[in-house]
Amino acid sequence: MRTHLRSLLERPGVLRLAGAHNPLGAKIAEHVGFDGVWASGLEISASFGVPDASILSMTEFLDAARGMAESVAIPIVADCDTGFGNADNVQHMVRRYEAAGVSAVSIEDKCFPKTNSYLEGNHQLATIPDFCDRIIAAKSAQSTSYFMVIARVEALIVGRCISEAINRAHAYADAGADAILIHSKYPTWEEIKAFAKSWDSSRPLVVVPTTYGATHFSKFGELGVRIVIYANQGIRAAIKATTETLAEILSSGSCESVEQHIATLETVFELQGVAPYLHSPLLSASVDSHR
Amino acid sequence: MRTHLRSLLERPGVLRLAGAHNPLGAKIAEHVGFDGVWASGLEISASFGVPDASILSMTEFLDAARGMAESVAIPIVADCDTGFGNADNVQHMVRRYEAAGVSAVSIEDKCFPKTNSYLEGNHQLATIPDFCDRIIAAKSAQSTSYFMVIARVEALIVGRCISEAINRAHAYADAGADAILIHSKYPTWEEIKAFAKSWDSSRPLVVVPTTYGATHFSKFGELGVRIVIYANQGIRAAIKATTETLAEILSSGSCESVEQHIATLETVFELQGVAPYLHSPLLSASVDSHR
Amino acid sequence: MRTHLRSLLERPGVLRLAGAHNPLGAKIAEHVGFDGVWASGLEISASFGVPDASILSMTEFLDAARGMAESVAIPIVADCDTGFGNADNVQHMVRRYEAAGVSAVSIEDKCFPKTNSYLEGNHQLATIPDFCDRIIAAKSAQSTSYFMVIARVEALIVGRCISEAINRAHAYADAGADAILIHSKYPTWEEIKAFAKSWDSSRPLVVVPTTYGATHFSKFGELGVRIVIYANQGIRAAIKATTETLAEILSSGSCESVEQHIATLETVFELQGVAPYLHSPLLSASVDSHR
Amino acid sequence: MRTHLRSLLERPGVLRLAGAHNPLGAKIAEHVGFDGVWASGLEISASFGVPDASILSMTEFLDAARGMAESVAIPIVADCDTGFGNADNVQHMVRRYEAAGVSAVSIEDKCFPKTNSYLEGNHQLATIPDFCDRIIAAKSAQSTSYFMVIARVEALIVGRCISEAINRAHAYADAGADAILIHSKYPTWEEIKAFAKSWDSSRPLVVVPTTYGATHFSKFGELGVRIVIYANQGIRAAIKATTETLAEILSSGSCESVEQHIATLETVFELQGVAPYLHSPLLSASVDSHR
Repeated sequence: MRTHLRSLLERPGVLRLAGAHNPLGAKIAEHVGFDGVWASGLEISASFGVPDASILSMTEFLDAARGMAESVAIPIVADCDTGFGNADNVQHMVRRYEAAGVSAVSIEDKCFPKTNSYLEGNHQLATIPDFCDRIIAAKSAQSTSYFMVIARVEALIVGRCISEAINRAHAYADAGADAILIHSKYPTWEEIKAFAKSWDSSRPLVVVPTTYGATHFSKFGELGVRIVIYANQGIRAAIKATTETLAEILSSGSCESVEQHIATLETVFELQGVAPYLHSPLLSASVDSHR
Repeated sequence: MRTHLRSLLERPGVLRLAGAHNPLGAKIAEHVGFDGVWASGLEISASFGVPDASILSMTEFLDAARGMAESVAIPIVADCDTGFGNADNVQHMVRRYEAAGVSAVSIEDKCFPKTNSYLEGNHQLATIPDFCDRIIAAKSAQSTSYFMVIARVEALIVGRCISEAINRAHAYADAGADAILIHSKYPTWEEIKAFAKSWDSSRPLVVVPTTYGATHFSKFGELGVRIVIYANQGIRAAIKATTETLAEILSSGSCESVEQHIATLETVFELQGVAPYLHSPLLSASVDSHR
Repeated sequence: MRTHLRSLLERPGVLRLAGAHNPLGAKIAEHVGFDGVWASGLEISASFGVPDASILSMTEFLDAARGMAESVAIPIVADCDTGFGNADNVQHMVRRYEAAGVSAVSIEDKCFPKTNSYLEGNHQLATIPDFCDRIIAAKSAQSTSYFMVIARVEALIVGRCISEAINRAHAYADAGADAILIHSKYPTWEEIKAFAKSWDSSRPLVVVPTTYGATHFSKFGELGVRIVIYANQGIRAAIKATTETLAEILSSGSCESVEQHIATLETVFELQGVAPYLHSPLLSASVDSHR
Repeated sequence: MRTHLRSLLERPGVLRLAGAHNPLGAKIAEHVGFDGVWASGLEISASFGVPDASILSMTEFLDAARGMAESVAIPIVADCDTGFGNADNVQHMVRRYEAAGVSAVSIEDKCFPKTNSYLEGNHQLATIPDFCDRIIAAKSAQSTSYFMVIARVEALIVGRCISEAINRAHAYADAGADAILIHSKYPTWEEIKAFAKSWDSSRPLVVVPTTYGATHFSKFGELGVRIVIYANQGIRAAIKATTETLAEILSSGSCESVEQHIATLETVFELQGVAPYLHSPLLSASVDSHR
């Protein structure tokens, strides 16, 4: 049975989520002990070899998230960019993600099409009323009580001040957002700290320490943050290792030197879950009547 | 413009292909200098978190291969298991893979549903006439001259002798196969050597040195092998690195110690091909009439 | 909230299901008053323009069924051919269909790949133990109590006698099948009548009156049949009407003469459910604080 | 071999295209003699049971268009709404549609997300520079010479005057559009006539006579129109026929009265193309050596 994010938030402590782009990544995150999986827009876009700039459609993000939900028991939180359009798109999105077994969606207060927050570019913030419409639409579309809508505040990303970020977060909470993801690409956790100290609402805070990843997660917990998302380290590890391994095979002319640096086939088979399958010839042993 | 496998085979030398399961992996293989990509059934199944036992359907394998073909210029060779059924399925398969931009498909002489060759299990070889039907169907369904059908011989995998493998390979070549993949899970290259020395046909040989990967690829070339496929080392590197990185983040409580072992965000962006996109605001500079 | 087939079976009377191949067809079936939808393998294959001979994969059938489940509140019963392989494939299938919101799956006792029951061809019946394995696998894979597995008996289709059909149905019921679909392509309901009169089990019977469609459904009810599936009349109506309308537009040179024979745009919009969407600009009217 | 739209335009006369939403519809259009297929956004949205308001993503529209291209030899012209976002999205779109075998795409000068042109609503026209960017992006992304980009002018739909429509059409032609689709929902062809008489460019005109469908296509030809698209009559015929047939089955209690109004199973099988498949057992007759 799936555990949902809302249940995990009922107990004290900081939850840690790992980014993933396919069921395999979700299984690894679950296996090593993460509390949940972040179906990362950056990771999924990268796995398709396209920019994280609203190039992939909701369909591809949804299929990836559904595959993860079908593969692990820990909650899936889906990075849903801007909500893929306006409030109508958001309603459609929530119905589909909820049906896919996802525990929460995160939508950010930028305009479609968006650009990845870590890229220079023409980041366009949505107006507060426009984004509140999307939140209201999202909350009105969900059909279960556990499903959560996380509002992601991009104000700091585009260079706005802490007070605008706080103002927006309050508006989003009032519109019904179940949690606030305050996003920052500052090289230290100073922005997050300033924001968190000004945050006087009971809505839980979510952070994504990519540029300020050196901060220990317990520090975020002391600020009242409830969820810490390690959003893209998994795929970045995979890219480096795959690149180096393939390059080494080419340059050395064989697999001899890479063998010790890669998972065994047995590990691959274990992650694939070979065990529960492949037993069918035995199943019918006890059913012999009427033959 | 895409280069096809058949063109590469016209020049002398051994071609080396790397396994991949998504466009990102194909891009890495191309980037480090591989001659082509093997759209690996094991890798794709693993990425979906399911056993490599005909659990995924042709649709999922095809979508993965199409995405790779759309992302790189080097040829894609698709691992198509048994052909996904009988000769009718094979015809459908060839039409779809060819339309997807794939340069060659490989089908193996087992019965559907199959089990991964490296797993113990109830491997069932197809009869020679049955498998020849699939080859004939495949060749009759292609619409371009460059497309290739590779027949994969599993005789050695299931414990049959070299002479049966040779016999089968000849029958498949006579039925129209453009190349023969002789598969072995022997811990050294002895089986491959014995097979290659008995092979007196002009049809090129293909090998997959997973268990006998310590052999230098030039050794295979001396035997007359034209294509060497490093079928799963890429994902195995990714699995180990992702697992260790995520575990380290959990145990250390931050990203500090993993940062130096993972690709930078800039590397991710480069692989995503950010450059060709994101320039649109400039495009219209020269179009101002009629406004 | 979705009503499931099992709930409907708890009240007396005959349930009638209509075949469909997409959400639009499911909506029409619900709109005119059918009790449920049959996600028809023949209809879905036809909509893709390919033979109903295991050419489409589970993925395409599943996507179609999921779309229907997301579009209507009446139960979806999915035609799952042979189960798409062996017992391992069936387990995978049940997990995916159940997660997609489908209320029941039907699997038939033929071997993969199958051919449509109404086509001459090399229909190959599964052995009883083999098919019971698939049923056991299916039942062991479901996670909710409402989900149903319908075993479809093809013995009469391939020319076997009533007693073999009964024998098989009993074996399937003993293996756990929740209902028995007894299939016949006899031009009258005589075969069905003979089978039903010999059926002494409490497992409900399902029939598909395509060749014997002149029989009133209440007659089936008198035999103890609980579910009658009108499996393909919807798409057959669509094919005839679309063909005639398009031909008339070509020959007459305009739409004038066809206009009265086709649905209005307003009807199309109603079926698309325009109403619940497209209202977003009003949503935020009551949320103005913090702006 | 596929015929492309550009080839058909090289000979004189008016081309007629029929709307379709799946391969079956495309096959019917080809069978009755249409020159090409319009992969209609309205039809595809309707088949999924969702509003034609950018609710479906490019992925779903593309999959439908690819399926059609794989099923017929006549050209497919894809209705691509607004291009699914900005110029970056349009480049991605063109690459994918061209790879899918589509002969031309049509993009309209509205903002994403759009609303169907026949619905009242908040239709927002793009600025000319913005839309020219999309056209330039589209043309720069294509890789073959036959591929065409059709610019669809929505000025008349949103109540602008003929001269603005002409002005926009010229700007789009200058930006590289290969053809101009002038859209009108006026109940007669007066708007189209006025536009066509003012059109002094060599770029071919395209019209979609849904509301003014009573006009004979030769009249459009006399105005210099080269392509007439009957965009949605096919699905409207299907909806009416399916609804009436299913309702009749329910009310009459059997299929007796509908049987004569629906296509036979044989017709369904013919459209599925049963013939080319299902012959495999004979294929190997001539291959008996080495067994």
